[in-house]
Amino acid sequence: MQFRVGICQMKVTNSKEANLSKAADQVRLAVSKGADLVVLPEMFTCPYQKELFASYAEVESNSLVFRFLSDLARESHCYLVGGSVPEQEGEMLYNTSYIFNRAGKLVGKHRKLHLFDIEIPGGISFKESAVLSSGESITTFETEFGRCGVAICYDLRFPELFRLMNEEDVKLVVVPAAFNLTTGPAHWETLFRARAIDNQLYMVGASPARDPKAAYVAYGHSLAVNPWGDLIYQADIVEEVGVVMLDSVKLEEIRLALPLLKHRRLDLYQVKSQMKEFIL
Amino acid sequence: MQFRVGICQMKVTNSKEANLSKAADQVRLAVSKGADLVVLPEMFTCPYQKELFASYAEVESNSLVFRFLSDLARESHCYLVGGSVPEQEGEMLYNTSYIFNRAGKLVGKHRKLHLFDIEIPGGISFKESAVLSSGESITTFETEFGRCGVAICYDLRFPELFRLMNEEDVKLVVVPAAFNLTTGPAHWETLFRARAIDNQLYMVGASPARDPKAAYVAYGHSLAVNPWGDLIYQADIVEEVGVVMLDSVKLEEIRLALPLLKHRRLDLYQVKSQMKEFIL
Repeated sequence: MQFRVGICQMKVTNSKEANLSKAADQVRLAVSKGADLVVLPEMFTCPYQKELFASYAEVESNSLVFRFLSDLARESHCYLVGGSVPEQEGEMLYNTSYIFNRAGKLVGKHRKLHLFDIEIPGGISFKESAVLSSGESITTFETEFGRCGVAICYDLRFPELFRLMNEEDVKLVVVPAAFNLTTGPAHWETLFRARAIDNQLYMVGASPARDPKAAYVAYGHSLAVNPWGDLIYQADIVEEVGVVMLDSVKLEEIRLALPLLKHRRLDLYQVKSQMKEFIL
Repeated sequence: MQFRVGICQMKVTNSKEANLSKAADQVRLAVSKGADLVVLPEMFTCPYQKELFASYAEVESNSLVFRFLSDLARESHCYLVGGSVPEQEGEMLYNTSYIFNRAGKLVGKHRKLHLFDIEIPGGISFKESAVLSSGESITTFETEFGRCGVAICYDLRFPELFRLMNEEDVKLVVVPAAFNLTTGPAHWETLFRARAIDNQLYMVGASPARDPKAAYVAYGHSLAVNPWGDLIYQADIVEEVGVVMLDSVKLEEIRLALPLLKHRRLDLYQVKSQMKEFIL
């Protein structure tokens, strides 16, 4: 079967209201182009500055953004991977992606598992772990296309996570992300392509559009990769809504032609997980 | 410290004698350019045709190629990863890499762990498992630069193996390989770069030169990638001896700047191994 994914590369401002309005416009545009599932970027409601996360954070039970995303998914009749937002629970802050089905029902909630701490001399410096706590769960949900996984940005760097998704028969991994001008040119495309090639599944990444005036400048270049590792879509750095076609027949053909998942030496090694599953 | 690796992209013919002579020339050339460690391609003594492996195979205790490689390493005073050769043991054939230190002493022996079976409609078709048996061991050895790992060709596709090498503090993985004209353009460079980025180590791949008249046409494009994922050397398709400089200071700087190996969530997942170690 064929399944269309909409990828929203939006510019994020310091106005939560304006960001939600822009997100709604982009999601509706993607759906008007036939998207079955739409993904927003990492931290799409607030600037990617750790000192701001607390003031933009919401508690789930009383969250404006949560209701907004649920309504948007239901009205648009699409699966919606709501990028990510700062979530507050008690004293803790998380980088959280809420995922809704076509009826606007929550079907997944991913808290970023790996926090991004980097310190490159003369380059980027960022320490998420100073303000955020990390998740404990692998996140997958069911669609007509098959099971889909969600990872957030830095999670992309850890191949074990994608192997474990593979074990759950995931056919598409959706990654709201905000690489930067140091790591983006060096690693962004290669990592998406490698996860797709190794696990023979579709990979989609949604980045904020680039804002050179932002404290943290996102790389842009939102993309989609097929299970053979071909780049089937890549945005530039400005705002853009892309819609890509996924094809389950093509995926199965690739797995049949080069059955590398069956060639793993599970008698010699395995990725073992103690991760929880998200329970509604 | 700095450490030079010589990469021999040689054309393999159906004459074992000519192949050994060419290999000796290329290894000596690499050493004359300062190489501390030299790598030959996969199946450098015989055409890459599974029906020929048996007739070119040797038993280790009585192996001409084994003595040739040992002598060459000792005379050249270099580490030598002897590409790979068909090895016979009892009724079994293996795709085996012998590894020698500067004194010509065997320090490792890698039998290809993952056998290459592929069947692409209108493309490449090959079934190694019809004639070869697979290894059971992870292979690493010590040098002045640090511990090095060896994988053969299709082993490259299995990220678990490289994580396990990482656990053994490997700083360089050497991969004799022979991708083809289907998988080479699609995957060769991306896979080497991804293993380097994920595990923050050097990756080196040595392919046979391309011979359009061969039954199996190798991709060529032997390469080296640094721990940031930069391609620091890539051959074309003809015969070529490249020598690349590895730098342990650069490796440590990258691991310090982006300490992603420390950011793995080992509380949530681990790669578990039942692999044996090569015992001399």
